[in-house]
This record gives sequence, C-alpha cells and structure tokens, in this order.
Amino acid sequence: MPPGSLVYVGEEHKEEVTISSIEFNEHEVNEKQHASLDDLKPMIHSEKITWINVNGVHNVEVVDAISKMVGLHPLTTEDILNTEHRPKIDFFENHLLAIVKMIDLEQDESELDIEQVSFILLENTVVTFQEKKGDLFDPVRLMLKENKGKIRKSGADFLFYSLMDVIFDQYLIIMDEMDDRIATLEGNIMEDPDNHSLQDINEYKNTILQLKKTVWPVREVVNKLINRKVPYISESISFYLQDIHDHIVQANDMVETSRGQLYGLLDVYYSTLSMKMNEIMKVLTIVSTIFIPLTFIAGIYGMNFAHMPELSLSWGYPAVWIVMIIITGIMVMYFKKKNWF
Amino acid sequence: MPPGSLVYVGEEHKEEVTISSIEFNEHEVNEKQHASLDDLKPMIHSEKITWINVNGVHNVEVVDAISKMVGLHPLTTEDILNTEHRPKIDFFENHLLAIVKMIDLEQDESELDIEQVSFILLENTVVTFQEKKGDLFDPVRLMLKENKGKIRKSGADFLFYSLMDVIFDQYLIIMDEMDDRIATLEGNIMEDPDNHSLQDINEYKNTILQLKKTVWPVREVVNKLINRKVPYISESISFYLQDIHDHIVQANDMVETSRGQLYGLLDVYYSTLSMKMNEIMKVLTIVSTIFIPLTFIAGIYGMNFAHMPELSLSWGYPAVWIVMIIITGIMVMYFKKKNWF
Amino acid sequence: MPPGSLVYVGEEHKEEVTISSIEFNEHEVNEKQHASLDDLKPMIHSEKITWINVNGVHNVEVVDAISKMVGLHPLTTEDILNTEHRPKIDFFENHLLAIVKMIDLEQDESELDIEQVSFILLENTVVTFQEKKGDLFDPVRLMLKENKGKIRKSGADFLFYSLMDVIFDQYLIIMDEMDDRIATLEGNIMEDPDNHSLQDINEYKNTILQLKKTVWPVREVVNKLINRKVPYISESISFYLQDIHDHIVQANDMVETSRGQLYGLLDVYYSTLSMKMNEIMKVLTIVSTIFIPLTFIAGIYGMNFAHMPELSLSWGYPAVWIVMIIITGIMVMYFKKKNWF
Amino acid sequence: MPPGSLVYVGEEHKEEVTISSIEFNEHEVNEKQHASLDDLKPMIHSEKITWINVNGVHNVEVVDAISKMVGLHPLTTEDILNTEHRPKIDFFENHLLAIVKMIDLEQDESELDIEQVSFILLENTVVTFQEKKGDLFDPVRLMLKENKGKIRKSGADFLFYSLMDVIFDQYLIIMDEMDDRIATLEGNIMEDPDNHSLQDINEYKNTILQLKKTVWPVREVVNKLINRKVPYISESISFYLQDIHDHIVQANDMVETSRGQLYGLLDVYYSTLSMKMNEIMKVLTIVSTIFIPLTFIAGIYGMNFAHMPELSLSWGYPAVWIVMIIITGIMVMYFKKKNWF
Amino acid sequence: MPPGSLVYVGEEHKEEVTISSIEFNEHEVNEKQHASLDDLKPMIHSEKITWINVNGVHNVEVVDAISKMVGLHPLTTEDILNTEHRPKIDFFENHLLAIVKMIDLEQDESELDIEQVSFILLENTVVTFQEKKGDLFDPVRLMLKENKGKIRKSGADFLFYSLMDVIFDQYLIIMDEMDDRIATLEGNIMEDPDNHSLQDINEYKNTILQLKKTVWPVREVVNKLINRKVPYISESISFYLQDIHDHIVQANDMVETSRGQLYGLLDVYYSTLSMKMNEIMKVLTIVSTIFIPLTFIAGIYGMNFAHMPELSLSWGYPAVWIVMIIITGIMVMYFKKKNWF
Repeated sequence: MPPGSLVYVGEEHKEEVTISSIEFNEHEVNEKQHASLDDLKPMIHSEKITWINVNGVHNVEVVDAISKMVGLHPLTTEDILNTEHRPKIDFFENHLLAIVKMIDLEQDESELDIEQVSFILLENTVVTFQEKKGDLFDPVRLMLKENKGKIRKSGADFLFYSLMDVIFDQYLIIMDEMDDRIATLEGNIMEDPDNHSLQDINEYKNTILQLKKTVWPVREVVNKLINRKVPYISESISFYLQDIHDHIVQANDMVETSRGQLYGLLDVYYSTLSMKMNEIMKVLTIVSTIFIPLTFIAGIYGMNFAHMPELSLSWGYPAVWIVMIIITGIMVMYFKKKNWF
Repeated sequence: MPPGSLVYVGEEHKEEVTISSIEFNEHEVNEKQHASLDDLKPMIHSEKITWINVNGVHNVEVVDAISKMVGLHPLTTEDILNTEHRPKIDFFENHLLAIVKMIDLEQDESELDIEQVSFILLENTVVTFQEKKGDLFDPVRLMLKENKGKIRKSGADFLFYSLMDVIFDQYLIIMDEMDDRIATLEGNIMEDPDNHSLQDINEYKNTILQLKKTVWPVREVVNKLINRKVPYISESISFYLQDIHDHIVQANDMVETSRGQLYGLLDVYYSTLSMKMNEIMKVLTIVSTIFIPLTFIAGIYGMNFAHMPELSLSWGYPAVWIVMIIITGIMVMYFKKKNWF
Repeated sequence: MPPGSLVYVGEEHKEEVTISSIEFNEHEVNEKQHASLDDLKPMIHSEKITWINVNGVHNVEVVDAISKMVGLHPLTTEDILNTEHRPKIDFFENHLLAIVKMIDLEQDESELDIEQVSFILLENTVVTFQEKKGDLFDPVRLMLKENKGKIRKSGADFLFYSLMDVIFDQYLIIMDEMDDRIATLEGNIMEDPDNHSLQDINEYKNTILQLKKTVWPVREVVNKLINRKVPYISESISFYLQDIHDHIVQANDMVETSRGQLYGLLDVYYSTLSMKMNEIMKVLTIVSTIFIPLTFIAGIYGMNFAHMPELSLSWGYPAVWIVMIIITGIMVMYFKKKNWF
Repeated sequence: MPPGSLVYVGEEHKEEVTISSIEFNEHEVNEKQHASLDDLKPMIHSEKITWINVNGVHNVEVVDAISKMVGLHPLTTEDILNTEHRPKIDFFENHLLAIVKMIDLEQDESELDIEQVSFILLENTVVTFQEKKGDLFDPVRLMLKENKGKIRKSGADFLFYSLMDVIFDQYLIIMDEMDDRIATLEGNIMEDPDNHSLQDINEYKNTILQLKKTVWPVREVVNKLINRKVPYISESISFYLQDIHDHIVQANDMVETSRGQLYGLLDVYYSTLSMKMNEIMKVLTIVSTIFIPLTFIAGIYGMNFAHMPELSLSWGYPAVWIVMIIITGIMVMYFKKKNWF
Repeated sequence: MPPGSLVYVGEEHKEEVTISSIEFNEHEVNEKQHASLDDLKPMIHSEKITWINVNGVHNVEVVDAISKMVGLHPLTTEDILNTEHRPKIDFFENHLLAIVKMIDLEQDESELDIEQVSFILLENTVVTFQEKKGDLFDPVRLMLKENKGKIRKSGADFLFYSLMDVIFDQYLIIMDEMDDRIATLEGNIMEDPDNHSLQDINEYKNTILQLKKTVWPVREVVNKLINRKVPYISESISFYLQDIHDHIVQANDMVETSRGQLYGLLDVYYSTLSMKMNEIMKVLTIVSTIFIPLTFIAGIYGMNFAHMPELSLSWGYPAVWIVMIIITGIMVMYFKKKNWF
C-alpha cells in the first residue's frame, strides 16, 4: 500500500453504516436518523449542541466525508479507519480527536470484545465513530431525553466528558468481573488441574495484557486533556476530567492486581501437579515396599533344595504367615509415622 | 448509572449513622452526640476548634448534607461515598479533602480489614467520615479530654495531623504483625507442606498487595500536604508532616521486605515438596534394589530343571542364604556411602 | 585497527555495487543506472528532487566518495560502513544522516533478515545506502512514476518520509506474522513437546529481542526528527512524522506482547513435560500396584512346605483365582475413583 | 501511644548509658568520661573542637536533655530514640542531624548486627549517639590522640566526615566477607544440598536485603550533604563527601552482585536436587530393568506343567544361565551407551 | 586504616614499575624509558605533546609523586591506587582524571581479565596508569611512530580519545567472543547436561555481570566528557566522543542480549534434565509393565495346588507362552502408540 492511502483496517463488517444525531439545548431535544450526510454540515456549526454518532467505520467514504467536514488531517482520518490504533488524543485549532476503546467481556469466554470509539469534539458538536451497532451510551441518551442532571444545560465538552465517563466506568466493571472469573478458575485448578487449566491461565493473561494496553494509554490521553488549554473545553470541566483520571489509575491498579493473581495461580497449578505426582509415587512405593519383601520370602520357600529343614516343620507354613504379617505391620507403622496415608 | 449521581459503593451496612463532635480550646472541651445535622453548621465556623466524626457513609443524604455545608464539589462527595477509592488529597480554597485507609488485621485470618476514612480540614474544623463504628482515635480523644501534649493549644491542622498519625502508625504495627505471621507460616511449611500452605502464601501475597495499595499512594498524599501552601495549614506543622512521610516510607520498605520473604517462602515450599519426593523415591529404590536381586536368586532355585546339581548339595540352602546376606550387606553399604539413609 | 580507518563491517558480499537515481519534479520523472559517480554530483545540488539509491556498502571507495560529495564527517562514513550499527540520526548544517533497519522474516525459519539502510537527506536530494539488492521501496517508485498522491508535488523531505514509512510499516506486518507463528508453535508444543520445542522458543525469543533492538531506538530517531528544527525539513511534514511515531510505539507494544506470549509458552512447555511424566508414572504405578500383590499370592502357593492345607483342597485353585480377581477389581475401582484412567 | 511522646524503640538494654568527650585543637587533646550532663553545655559552644559520644539511647532523659541543649525539634529526638529508623539527614539553621547504621557480621551466622548511630554536627561540636558500647571509631580516636593526618588541624566537619567514613568503609568490608561466605555456601550446596541449604540461602537473602536497606538510603543522605550549603560545613570538605558517595555507590553495586549470586545459588540448589533425583531413579531403573526379566525367566521354569520339555534336558539349566548372562550383558551395554553408569 | 592514607588496593604485583614516554609533534617523535621521575616534570609542561605511561600502580610513591606533579587531590590519588574503583571522571581546572577498565577474556576460561587504566589529561600531556605490563595501545604507538592519520597533527585531547577508543573497541570484540562461547555452551548442554553445565552458566552470568559493571558507568563518563566544556578539550573532538558513546551503548545492548541468552540457557538446562528423567522413567515403566504381568502368570503356574487342571494338559505350556507373547505384543503396541519408543 502506498503511504497516504485511506484504508479500513479491522474485522470485516457487512452491516450498513448508520448515522444518528441528537440536537439539544436546555429547552428541546431532537433525535434523528440520517440516510445521507447532507444535513449534517449545518448541525456541526449550529448554536445548539449536537451529537452525531456513526456506527461503522468500514465505509471509507463516509468517514472521509465527515472528516473533511470537520477539517481533519488525512493522516488522522487514517487513524480513525485503523481500528487497531492505540488510544490517543490530538489537539487542533478548533477541535480535538480522541481515540479510545470500549470493552466488553464475552459470556463464557475469557476473550475481550474491544471496539474502537473515536471522538471529535468541536465548539458545539461531538462526533463519535463506532465500529458497529450497540454501545454503552444509553444512560447518556436517557439523561439527554429526560433532561436529568446538568447535561442539557452544559456545552459539548460536558457531553464529551459524559460519553467518555461511561466508557471508562465500564473498565472498572470488567475488572471486577475478571476478578470473579480468576477466583473461579483458581477453585477449578485446585480441584483438578489439567493442561486445559494452563491454557485458561494463559488466555486470562492475554486478556489482562489487552486490558493493560487498553487502559494504560488512556492515562496519557486524560492527562493531556487536563493540562492542555483549548477554547472548546471550558475550565469548569477540569474537575470532571480529574475524576476520570482517578478512575483510570484505579483500573490500572486492578489490572496489576489481577496479573499478580494469575502468577499466583501458575504456582498453584504447578504445585498441584507436583502434589499429584507425589501421591502417585506414594501409592507405588507403599505397595512395592510392602509386597516385594513378602514376595521374596515366598520365593525362598519356593526353592527346591533337597535339604531345607523349615519345609518339613509342621508349624513352618503358619510361622511364615506370622512373619509376613509382622513385616507388613512394621511397614504400615513406618508409613503412618511418615504421614503417607 | 448516569454520570454525576451520588451512590454509596461498598459493603452493605444496616447500623444507623451516628455523628459525634468534640469542641475545644485551651480552656474547655465539649463532647456531644448529634441526632440531627442542624447544630453542626455553627460549629464549623465557630472560633473554637471542632472535630466532627461521622460513623457510616452509607447514608447518602447525611454525607451530601455535610459536604454541602462545607462546600465540597459533587464529584468529591461521590469519592467519599465510594469506599473503594484510592487514597488521595484535593485542595480547595478554604478546605482540603484527604481520603486514606484505616487498617486492621483479623485475628486468625490473613485478611486485612480496611476502612476508608475521609478527612475534611477547614480553618477551625476537622470532619472525619468513617465506614463504621470503632476506630483508632481513642488516644487522640484522651489527649483532648485530659489536655495532654500541645493538641488543645494548637489549631485544627494539628488535630488533623494527630488523627492521620495514629492511622499511619498502625501501618507499622500491622507490618510487624505480618512479619511474625510469615515467620510462623515458614515454620509450618518446612515441617509439613501441603497444598493449603500454598494457598496461605497466596493469601498473604494478596494481603501484602492490598497493604501496598493502601500505603503507597499515601506517600503522594503526604508529599502534597508538605509542598502545598494553603492558609488553613500553618507553617509549624510541616515538620510533623515530614515525620509522617518518613514513617510511610518505612512502611513501604517493610511491605517490600515482606514480599521478598513470601517469594523466599515459595522456594521453601517447592523445595520441601521436591525433598519429600526424593525421600519417597529413596525408600522405593532401597527396598526394590535390595529385594529384587534376592527374589531373582530365590526364583533360580525354584526352577524345576531335572539336572540342577546345587539343589542336592546338603550345604546348598545355607550357602544361598549366605550369598543373599552378603548381597544385602553390599547394597546397604552402597546406600550408606551415598548417604541415602 | 587504528582508530579513524574506514572499514566495512558486515557479511561478505561479492555482488557489484549498483547505483540508480530517480530525478523528478511535478512535471517529469527520470530513472537512471549509473556506472560511475561522476554524474551524481550535479544531481545533488540541482533544482529537481533527486533520489540516489546505492545497493551495497561493502565497496568502501564508493561510500567514501558519496560521503565526501555530501560533506559527511569521516566518523559518520564509518557508521554507514558498519552494518551492525544501532539505528540513529545525526543532524548537520545542511543535511542529516539517519540509519535504520529494513527487516524481513525468512520463510521457514524464525530468523530475521535485517538489512541496514542509511538515509542522507539534503535540501533537494535523498541518498539511500542499502546492503544488497532488493528492497521495500517499489510502492514509492510506482507512486513517483505514476504521479500518485502528493509525492511528486512535494520536496525531498516528503520522499524521505515516504521511504521511512514503508520500512516502518513492514515492522507491523512482521509482528503480525510473528504472532501467527507463535500461535502455531503453541499448538505444536501442546501436542508433543520435545527438546526441539524449547529451542524453537529460544529462537523466537532471540528474534523478538532482535526486533526490540531494531524497533526501540527508532522511537528516539523519530522523536529527534519531530523536535529538531532544520531548514531542509518543512513544517508540514511534522504531522507525518508524528504518524510514524505512533506506528513505532504500536510496534513496540506488539513486541512486548509477543515476548509475554513466549514466556507463557515456556510454562506450557514445562507443564506438558510434567504432565507426560505424571502419565508415565501412572502407567507404572497402576501395573505394579495391581500385579505385585497378585504375584505375591501366587508366590505363597508356590512354597514347598510339607503342611499347607490349602494346597490339597479341591477348590483351592479356583478360590485363589477368585481372590485375585476381587483384589484386581478393588484396585481398578480405587484408580477409577482417583481419576487415573 | 499518643503522638508526640518520647519513647525508646529497640532491643532492651540494661547497661548504663555512658558519655565520653574528646576536646581538641591543633595543640592539645583532652579525653573525659562524664557522669553527669552538666559540664557538656559549655563544651558545645567552646572554641575548641569537641566530640561527645553517648553510648546507649535507651535512657530517654539523657537523649532528651542533650537534644534540648542543641535545640533539636522534639520529633527529631523521637527519631534518635527509634533505633529502627531509616538513614536520613535533617538540616537546621545551626546544626544538622544524620542517622546512619553501623554494621557488623556475626562470626558463624549470616545475621547482621546493625547499630544505629545518630550524628549531630554543630559549628565546633560533633555529638554521636550509639545504641551500645563498642564501635568502629578507634582509628579516629588514635588519629586525634597521635595528631596524625589533618584531623586536629581541621574543624568539626572534618571530624564528622572521618567518623562517617569509617562507618561506610565497613560496608565494603562486610560486602567482601559476604562474598566469601556465599562462595563457601555454594561449595556446600553443590556437594550435598539439603533443606538447610535453602534456609541458608534465604537467610543470606534477608541479610543482603537488610544491607540494601542500610546502604541505599545513605546515597541520598550523602547527596544532600554534598548539595546543601550550610555554614557549619566548609567548602573544602565537599571533595571528601564525593569520595564517600563513590564508596556508597560501589557498596550498592556489590549488594546487587551478591543478590544475583544468591539467585544463581538457588538454581544450583534446585538443579542439584534434580540431579540427585535422576541418580536415584537411575539406580532403581538399572536394577529393575536387569533383574525383572531374569526373574521372569526363572519364573517360567518354576512352573509345574507336566509337559515342559526343556526341564528334562540335561543342558537346560546351564543354558538358562547362559541366556540370563547374555541378557544382563546386553542391558549393561545399553546403559553404558546411555552413560547411566 | 585511618581515613586519608594512601594505600594500594588490588592484587599483589612483584614486577617493578616502569615508566615510558612518547614526545611528539607533527615533525618528530621521541620514545623513552625513564628510570627516575626527574625528567618527567619538564615534559608535562613542554610545547610538544607528551604521553607518559606508567605500568604498575602498586608503588605508592611513584603514583603519589606524579599526582603531585600534576596537582591531583590526595583523594583522587587514592582512587588511582584503588584498582577496584568504579569507572569515573573528575574535572579540575587544568586537567581531568578518567578511570576506566581495560578488559580481556582468558583463553579457556570464562573469567574476565580486568585491568584499571587511569588517564590524566592536561593541556599538552596525557598520563596513563596501568596495573601491569601489556596493553591494547600498540596501534596508537604505531600511528604515532609512522605518522598515520591525524594523530601527530592533533593535540593531547585527540591522543586521549585514541587511547580511550582502543579500550572501548575491545569491549565489542569481547562481547562477540562471549556470544560465540555462549553458543558453544548451549550446544554442550543440549547434548549432555551435568551439574558442571550449571556452574558454567553461573560463571558466564558472573562474567556478564562484570562486563555490565565495567561498561555501564562508562556511558556516564563519556556523557560528562561530551557535555562538560573544559579548556584542555577542543570543540572538534566532540564528534569523536559521540562516536565512542554510540559504541558504549551498543556494547551495553550486547551485554543485555547475552544475559537474556544465558537465562534461555538455564531453561534449556532444566528442560534437558527433565527430558532425561522422563527417558529414564520410560525405560523403567516399559520393562516393568511388560514383565511384571508375565511374571505373575509364571507365578500362577508355579503354585503347588493339588488340583490345577491346566498343568496336566499337554498343550498347557505352549499355550502359556502364546498368551505371554500376545500380552507382550499388546503392550508394545500400546507404548508405540504413546510414542514412548
């Protein structure tokens, strides 16, 4: 591919790209579905606050058109199209672009479902690009429609904060869920460790690694948001950003904790394997140690020497039995003393 | 949950929220229980030094009311209600908010009992929020009542320092207790390691991790306290804060040491497992190596060949016994030389 | 070797050094092969943009001659000749020298094919030195010839960026390929681990290490490119450099991830070895534990005592068989309960 | 304990606190034992240089009295009384307080003997507090009495440096001794590893950790000494402090090296355990593999079938012996080839 | 030892200290051996460039005399005498002192031969102190005598650079040699790992550690050389110093790589041990599993029951053989299927 060409990078999607918008001010709210891009341009520069949401970035033309509307650099448009991009933030004269990850944990698997969300924040407008339908933004939509909280009275920057906030709150929820799953896995491993357990541990390690790669760079993104003075973010929002920052730090701590627990799990796994081995060896050793000497005694009196005085004694046979029982008793006591039973 | 709503995060508590206050100056001291919040407001701005203590933050209304009295930002009130918050400090124009953890170690378990304490420091008032009844502040209460030391003669900032100090001194006491417990665990493991030992090690590792997460961020809190110049903290207190800082650094060092010891314990555990295995194998090998050749000899003379000259010799049977005893002797000497007994 | 002498350091090459050039402006493009260096000098300072590509740095005279044409410091020429040099960038008054690595992964091996590429960027000229024929620059050549994108309309700095970009994009492609190969290796190890597997893991670790050493210093190179203001790099290029920087950071992340996966693989390997051992021991223990007691019973009735009442009973022999079958049954049930089958 | 109370923290000591002083200038030197504190005060502010040494800090009154003489902050006095304090330095207007550790290695144990030494440096006086009798300062006392070197001609700051220097030189000596002991331990482990060896390794790890905690913070102490300009330390001393700094860095390096060696020792330990296991298994396997087939053959001809033609052959018995010897020979050759002998 | 006394620290040397000098300018060169120090003083301050080389620092008087000639601080002289000093550089008004290590690898051992070289650089003079005869400086001597390169035309600073350069180039050569040796060791371990292999790995780890301690601080030395402006180092030399810096960074990278390889080797070692164990166990298990059941069958028909119908059947004996062969066949097929052969 020659450098500079716009290409979609990511999983193939067949569904059509859909565009919806919510336009609001303190007094009214307006939700629309858009078949074409034509009526978006006036919204971007209107007095009302507008949130334009694009589901699907696999349609290069749509993304390109909106990027041009806003005046994004072609390379930045490339970043939006590359769904494997690291979280980042870029500031421009009259807008910013923030790329973060929206995550979910699939039901019975340890794999993360990661969806890239790109935010464009202008004076009065927020544009969000998602990879596919379905998101975490419904509480924000409800707050907008029912005029809860101060969101309808605030600017685009507070809307932007609210959307980011639901994404980052999800990080903490996912980390809690991971904690529970790791605890369950620990239980399984202690009961019956198999090679599948190790695979599970490794899968969880990968998930934790992905979480780290998702959460860690967000710190920098939020730090830059806090420290950079730009006209389209008001002073009053900085306290809210600090709050997001605290949550991200907490999520990072939780990631590190889970990682430590997974390493502890590896120890549990190896130790349980070792314990099983010891148990197997104990069974073998006990049986062998008891019966091999007895078999030897039986072998002695199975010899065919002409002159073996014990053989003709009438109490010889029961005497051998008694000797054998005594030997067995001694062995059993020895193993008992060693705590092998 | 929509962003911006006040919610209590933490264990469920049923007990009622209780509010107590101690009002004092150099000459008098006054302790009260408050059924309602009405008489708190004048105390906050009175000339006397006042310490208001709230037991229980699960009652959102109470916390919200007091926060509003002081003029806290709604997000900060959210932090007080979230009992899983990282230790932090926020400075405002006329007050500060500090969130730290008060810890205790349960008697027979390795689990930490962590309780969040939020401090609000104003010009003449300290407000503390605890999760439940029972705290470490009794020595401070005694000093106030009996007018010991310089606490009655000093301002709210010295009261604030004194309360923090008893919390952080507890960290060192808990670390000492952890040290003792780890030493006990080491003894147990060396005597008889089982899978439960590993679980113990992992539980202690979790406790140490929690301690680290509790102690480490406090460094930053105290650093900010030392370096930030605010009107409600007098210069003279800075030396005391430096002292707290030293203790926190020492607690951190102790956490790291305990962690190292736990890793050493893991080695002891695995090595003891390995030793046990070697011991089991030695028993098996000694018994097998002695008796298998003897059994073979017995087997030889148990064969039914028509022409086996040894069988008819009158000294054949005792000769076989002598050979067997010699072989056994050689084996025993061989194992003795190898230090297997 | 006395310090200051020009020496080629690297694999021996026999092929002749070839020099090609592409001269272009917005209106025309001119590709040439050069047998001698004589016609290069005017190109370097012409108005048109010129890209001179040298395949082979083992001919010290050629490299030295071109370096002198540009006015490079003798030590810098030494660096170009040392094909094991770390990636670096040096800025001079009217040109820069950047040394980076062009990588490829060989088909059936895990070894990296690393080729050093040195760039000299002047006002209107880019000179590239490669170790041997064959490179990744064909898309750029095509863009030049077919006048795609803005490359023909831009200066030498954009050409320089475009060439760097294809080299660094390759890093991400190689990392993806490594990921696939590591996944394949994991499959092989879980099925049948042998000592060769460990060798494979170690080889991949070496490859990852080499990748790290190739990719990591490039961050610094690009950082310096972004932050240093030099007359032969225009302002407008800085956004493109930032884009390269993002890709390098991403490649670094991928290297770290792969490294973590290889360590996980080591665990899989050891665990599978341990599992195999347990399986072997189980077979031995099951067979021994079942047959050793049975053999003992047979041994008992092989003894030649004169008075063994059981021997003359007519149901003695079948009774022994029944006892043996019962013992076997108990053992089998015991092993079933322990999940050893 | 209420905050602010002076308490001795450390091992219990019964011996009495003793105070000695050396007063000197270029021309005379005066050594005294002091029963009371009364005659110390004039010495502290006299023209002559005075070194006051206090053996024992378990007498809170004595330490408090001297601290007050000098004008130390009560919290600083607390630090002197806490013998488990981290090394630190505090600067005041007319004096400094430095707390460091004097170490020694007990003869047959790996435990460190750590004694806290607190220095107070004033214009013309050095006060040292030690935990108990016996120190490393005899060479300094000798230099003072015999007027060797420039110590009698220099100020209190040079005396202070000289005392610190002998303490820190001891660190290097102890590290050398540790090195020797670790080498001895390595020899013991390779010869005969037992569970005690692991305990030894862990004890040495603890000692190294303690050394690290003793040596590491001293870097900061010395750094502050070098960089802080105070009137009671002359310029000319800074070169000597730099020299101390170099030695502390070297001691730190040695600590890290020893730590690496202890980890290498752990590997040696585990590997030797593993080797022993392999050896045990080899003995078992060789004996079993040789005799089990032979016993089987003997068993064959011990069967009582009516028709076993081999039994009546006159060369049957010797033939079986020959077969057995051949089988044994093959086995022995097989094991020889595998290098198991 | 009282602080401030000059003592030689290092291995004992008996050979006499020898002093040689080379005096040169662009037109002439003069090499001399000096029996006494008297004729050195004028050389140090002459117009010609002078290189004075001292072989042996165990003669304290000689080192002290030269140090005083140059005007070194007594503590700096102490550093020259301490041959275990960390690499460092000190700048004075009219000279600098640099201490670095010259290394060599002994032929059949993994031990490093480290020799400390101290450089004093003045306006027109370089003084070098070596521990013993024999060094890497012959190429520089040749360049001086044969007037190759620009060394005769340049100042003392270029001579100083040239001498440093040959020392640091040796680092890269030694690292290459280490790489080869580690590869050889890997081969040996994979073929036949014994406890000696682990010792070898640990010895190489020590060597690598020593290399790290030798190479790492040199970065700082060279950095200080580059950044410090002193009158006796000309501007033009800074590019050469940058080149040295690049080589030191490369040597550091190589040290890290070798370290990683040694850890990989440890894995190979343990894995090969584990493999051997598995192999031993397989042999035991195969032999036992085949012959124990057969021996049991033979044991059955060795019983002396009066009524055992099989015994009197004429085809009983061959039938038992057939059964045994079938059982063996099944076992062999089972092990084949498990890939145990």
